[in-house]
Amino acid sequence: MKKINFEPVDWNYQEKEAWTCPSHQFQSPINIVNDHAKPMKEDGSLILRYRKKIDAIVNTGYCVQGYLKGVASINNRLFNFQQFHFHAKGEHTIDEKEFPLELHLVHQSENGKMAVIAVLFEIGEENNSIDFILDHLNESEFDNRFNLLSLVPKNLNYYHYLGSLTTPPLTENVEWYVLMEPMTLSKKQLNRLTEIHNHNYRETQEINDRQVLKKIFHA
Amino acid sequence: MKKINFEPVDWNYQEKEAWTCPSHQFQSPINIVNDHAKPMKEDGSLILRYRKKIDAIVNTGYCVQGYLKGVASINNRLFNFQQFHFHAKGEHTIDEKEFPLELHLVHQSENGKMAVIAVLFEIGEENNSIDFILDHLNESEFDNRFNLLSLVPKNLNYYHYLGSLTTPPLTENVEWYVLMEPMTLSKKQLNRLTEIHNHNYRETQEINDRQVLKKIFHA
Repeated sequence: MKKINFEPVDWNYQEKEAWTCPSHQFQSPINIVNDHAKPMKEDGSLILRYRKKIDAIVNTGYCVQGYLKGVASINNRLFNFQQFHFHAKGEHTIDEKEFPLELHLVHQSENGKMAVIAVLFEIGEENNSIDFILDHLNESEFDNRFNLLSLVPKNLNYYHYLGSLTTPPLTENVEWYVLMEPMTLSKKQLNRLTEIHNHNYRETQEINDRQVLKKIFHA
Repeated sequence: MKKINFEPVDWNYQEKEAWTCPSHQFQSPINIVNDHAKPMKEDGSLILRYRKKIDAIVNTGYCVQGYLKGVASINNRLFNFQQFHFHAKGEHTIDEKEFPLELHLVHQSENGKMAVIAVLFEIGEENNSIDFILDHLNESEFDNRFNLLSLVPKNLNYYHYLGSLTTPPLTENVEWYVLMEPMTLSKKQLNRLTEIHNHNYRETQEINDRQVLKKIFHA
C-alpha cells in the first residue's frame, strides 16, 4: 500500500469563518525562465480565425485597444475573441529580457475562462498594421479591412502558464500563451504609440508554485 | 463602426501599489439553479480511466480519502487523477436541494489546473464500495481490487462552472463538473461514514458573475 504523508494544516470545520484565502498567488505578468519551462505534452494547438474587418479602434484611457469578431480553438477548446490592446513596455520578460511592446489578444470561453495570447515586439522592420491602428484611432468611419494576424508571428510556439489579468481587477482566471517569436515595429512606430501611452505595464509578479510549459510545434 | 462604452474605472498606472485584487469571487461550492444553467456548446466529453486497484484509504483528519492511479480526458484535455474523498453533508446543492453525501474525484493537469468531478449521493440502495472503503480505512494490507467507477453514475451528464477548492487554501483554480445523476447509499452506510466525519462541508458561496453550463450527452 502507498504511504501517505500529510502536511500539517491549521484549519478546522468548527471555525470556517476564520478560513483564509491567499490571493495574489497566480498573478501576471511573470518573467519566464526558458530552462524551467517543461515541454507541454498535450496537443496544445492554436487555431486563430479572426474576421478581416476591424469594428473599432479606441483609446481606453489605459491603452490603445481594437475590437473585431473572431474565434480561436486553443488546446481544443472554443474561445470567442474579445479585443486586442498594447502595453509599453512589454509586460512579460523572457530570461529577464525586456521587450518595448506587448500585444494581448484577449479571448473568452463560454464558461467565462479567459485566454490571452501575448505577442512580444522588438525594434526592427516596421509593421504597417501599427500605423493603420494609430491612423484610425478613435475614428468612426474608415476603410476597416484589417488582418489581425499581421501582428502575430507565423510560428506559434509558445510558453503557457496560469495567471491573471494584468490590470484591475487582476482576476486569476486567465490562461496565458506567450508566443516565443517576437514581431518587430520601427522605433518611429514605437514612439507614435508611446506618445499616447507609455508605462502602461505591470511589473513581473512572483511565479510561486506554478509550472510554465513550453509548446514547440513540429511542421 | 462599433460604439464602445467603457465602464468607469478608478485605478491608474502611477499608483500600482494601490491596485486591489478582489478574491473570493469564484468560490465553491455553490447552489446550482438548473434553469440558469446554459447548455454547453463544446464537446465537453468525460473519459475516465482509473486503475482497478486502490493504493491507500486514509482518514486525513478532515475526510475519508482514497488514492489510486488514473487519467481522465476532460473536454479534450489530459488530467492525472489524484485522490477521491467524501463530504457529509454534500457541498453543492441543486435548486437548493441538499444531498447527504458528496464524492469528489480530484484531477490535475500538467499546467497545475485542477478539475473536480462531484458525485451527489441520496439515501437508497446500498453501495458495496462504501463498505469496502470503510472496512479498509487506514489498513496497510488488504485485497486492494477496487473499481472507482462503482461510485460514479453511468450517465455522466453534468453541470460545469469555474470555482475553488472547498477547503483551505480555497484556491480559485478549479474546474467543477457536478454530475446530475445522484448515486445512492444506505442510511446505515451514511451513518458509518458520518460517525467518522460529519459536518465536513463548506456552505454554498455566492455565484457572483459566473455562468453555470450544463452538458447533456446524447447516446
